Amino acid sequence: MRASRGRRPGAPDTRAEVLAAARASFAEKGFRGTTIRAVAASAGVDPALVHHYFGTKDDLFLAALEMPVDPREVLAPVVALGPDGAGERLLRTFLSVWDDPEIQVRLLAVVRSVLSEDGATLLKEGFIPVVVGPVLAQLVADRPDVRVPLVASQVVGLIVTRYLIALPPMATMPAEDVVARVGPVIQHYLTGDLP
Amino acid sequence: MRASRGRRPGAPDTRAEVLAAARASFAEKGFRGTTIRAVAASAGVDPALVHHYFGTKDDLFLAALEMPVDPREVLAPVVALGPDGAGERLLRTFLSVWDDPEIQVRLLAVVRSVLSEDGATLLKEGFIPVVVGPVLAQLVADRPDVRVPLVASQVVGLIVTRYLIALPPMATMPAEDVVARVGPVIQHYLTGDLP
Repeated sequence: MRASRGRRPGAPDTRAEVLAAARASFAEKGFRGTTIRAVAASAGVDPALVHHYFGTKDDLFLAALEMPVDPREVLAPVVALGPDGAGERLLRTFLSVWDDPEIQVRLLAVVRSVLSEDGATLLKEGFIPVVVGPVLAQLVADRPDVRVPLVASQVVGLIVTRYLIALPPMATMPAEDVVARVGPVIQHYLTGDLP
Repeated sequence: MRASRGRRPGAPDTRAEVLAAARASFAEKGFRGTTIRAVAASAGVDPALVHHYFGTKDDLFLAALEMPVDPREVLAPVVALGPDGAGERLLRTFLSVWDDPEIQVRLLAVVRSVLSEDGATLLKEGFIPVVVGPVLAQLVADRPDVRVPLVASQVVGLIVTRYLIALPPMATMPAEDVVARVGPVIQHYLTGDLP
């Protein structure tokens, strides 16, 4: 998402071609099977140019997903305050982003894409373990490999019920009620006793 | 799902025509907007014949969704034992159905359909509030309108992460580990203190 921060995006055609090549590669070969080198070759440019436009492979992935926000940046202040109360802080931050109508419509497009049969690989290989996982793992003292996916299971369920299908009353519940009701669950997954 | 219990389904063409009319109506008008009378008219049969083939509108809805199991029957023994320990029992039953490969592939087809833009109405108007909601509501002493959707938010997240996208390790976690780790969360939503 570097280009969205106001940096001159370079020749628009070349940038768009790199992004199209990246999308095709992520869709066809998944997150792990995609390399900056192969994307560059497919777009007919030097790998250094891909790095220049998009940063790392994770950055390129977020750009290809057309994420309107960078979850790593959004979550950084949540993580900085440590594990105490992180469940509620995490949800409050999550809701402040998702409840914004303009951001929500763009995030829903991403969700529909990664929930499709072709897109699931991106979510399970790329988005959760590579983009969000390492950030959340900083909040847990042990077993991030179990705790982070459990957090994901509740947050994904919240995305589907509150935003994707808009199930009452999940869809209309004031954000602070969601924080108070679901926050303890996120906290349990992050720091509670797990068998 | 009455017809799947071995009852003679009647003239196959008529039954199939009623089901096709029901699917079209649920898809176009949603759960609330569909009536047995309108489905019968659309299929050119008497409403009594629709009742005879499919039972109630809820039954017709489950048949139209092609659910391989009737969640009301599956959940009945869970509910019969009351709220104590219901979170773990609910998950154990849920997993015993979903972890069966033949049932899972059919349930995933239903999930893909109800998560699509056209299908979401069926999930939020029909499946959760009408089919599953009243069963789960028997387990809660107060505020079923909040507790049941919260349970749904975690169960839907489990379906998406464990089955739909098969996120490691949610996808490979032994059922009893899921029961032990997520069961307390379901129990919290059913009977815990909620602000």
